[in-house]
Amino acid sequence: MTISYDGTRFYGWERQLTTDMTIQGKLENVLNRMLELPEGETVTVIGAGRTDAGVHARAMTANVLLDTGKTEDEIRAYMNQYLPEDISVNELKVCADRFHSRFKAKGKTYCYTFWCADRKPVFDRKYVTVIEERPDVDRMRRGLERLVGTHDFKSFCGNNKMKKSTVRAIFDAEIKEQGPYIRIYFHGSGFLQNMVRIMSGTLLEIGLGHMEPEEIDAILEKQQRKFAGPTAPPQGLCMMNVDY
Amino acid sequence: MTISYDGTRFYGWERQLTTDMTIQGKLENVLNRMLELPEGETVTVIGAGRTDAGVHARAMTANVLLDTGKTEDEIRAYMNQYLPEDISVNELKVCADRFHSRFKAKGKTYCYTFWCADRKPVFDRKYVTVIEERPDVDRMRRGLERLVGTHDFKSFCGNNKMKKSTVRAIFDAEIKEQGPYIRIYFHGSGFLQNMVRIMSGTLLEIGLGHMEPEEIDAILEKQQRKFAGPTAPPQGLCMMNVDY
Repeated sequence: MTISYDGTRFYGWERQLTTDMTIQGKLENVLNRMLELPEGETVTVIGAGRTDAGVHARAMTANVLLDTGKTEDEIRAYMNQYLPEDISVNELKVCADRFHSRFKAKGKTYCYTFWCADRKPVFDRKYVTVIEERPDVDRMRRGLERLVGTHDFKSFCGNNKMKKSTVRAIFDAEIKEQGPYIRIYFHGSGFLQNMVRIMSGTLLEIGLGHMEPEEIDAILEKQQRKFAGPTAPPQGLCMMNVDY
Repeated sequence: MTISYDGTRFYGWERQLTTDMTIQGKLENVLNRMLELPEGETVTVIGAGRTDAGVHARAMTANVLLDTGKTEDEIRAYMNQYLPEDISVNELKVCADRFHSRFKAKGKTYCYTFWCADRKPVFDRKYVTVIEERPDVDRMRRGLERLVGTHDFKSFCGNNKMKKSTVRAIFDAEIKEQGPYIRIYFHGSGFLQNMVRIMSGTLLEIGLGHMEPEEIDAILEKQQRKFAGPTAPPQGLCMMNVDY
């Protein structure tokens, strides 16, 4: 299935024992109800990624094993009826048994949006990060170029206990300026925890002249989180697409 | 000044004694504070129109008489700092003494947005009216054509005690379909209470085949609210522009 959500009210994708305000939790609860599972039993919805609290998605993908006589359309209609208005199942279809939304993903696209204007983002205020000073987008682009490619992104990983490989590939990336919006698109093999937000925060520092575009190479090389810029806030981040 | 607001949380434009959750009330309170007016004294912000509870504006205009040493930029910065995040003053400048945002308005543009899709409007859910069945937009266009021009719009007036003239001119109007969005734009001399919402609700009925486009003529002629269609809900309506 393909899912959109406004992450504002949620504690991220991943199910938690202490709250039902997670995307995975909401999806599973609705499916458990549909299947009339006994208390304590649950389906497991496997997402392509685990977005942080406050992060949005236009097209997150997920798979789940369901034993039901309902059709694809009936399942989707049921889910959309009982899910809150800030979560929508946009597509749902039967997949191969061995499909796995995370392991089979070939690439993911994220977009980080800054808003810089004399006016406030009244209608988009939950989906952008407001910045006061206009950054030099050409400098940001020169920094971004140095992130593209296969690198060890350890310096851009928010999990300092990360045991597994921190090597990732960014296939391509671009920055689009549209009036007050400055949008950074990242298309890559996968992203480490907070990686897009740390890259976005670092590029903003470069755009504001607090760091040089060329410093990206040294930051990558040092493999320590402290050399990269700050983690940009969650509300500017949106998962755009997963390709298979 | 030109103001954007997300009307979701507000009881409309007009100041009320029983709540401070109105747009005019918020603007006046911030200006009273800026001017350090004594308790009980207030400035009066005159808006180009009085939007209903839940209705939005991209560019409402308003004027106010202020006795202050502050510059235009300082006033606007002060207002944006103390106004809530769902109200933004986008432009503010000194005008002629005799300027009046309502009396001097030559025309206004409103947009009514329906959303019709298999998926839910996750990111726009506060700004659209969801409809289940896809209307025939060509039929809606044929109905809309009959509304354009100078007519007595009494049948499209939500205030049945209206004493003043209910004649208004619609200069032009159009319907744009963009994916799930069906947007009806009305550009006219001015609009009666609920007029855009009643026209939109009537056009939807026509699109769904419950009324004929040609019936618009008879509805206009009868000059009674009961012959027009239902009042479409407020959240789909947005004031787009005022021209002078």
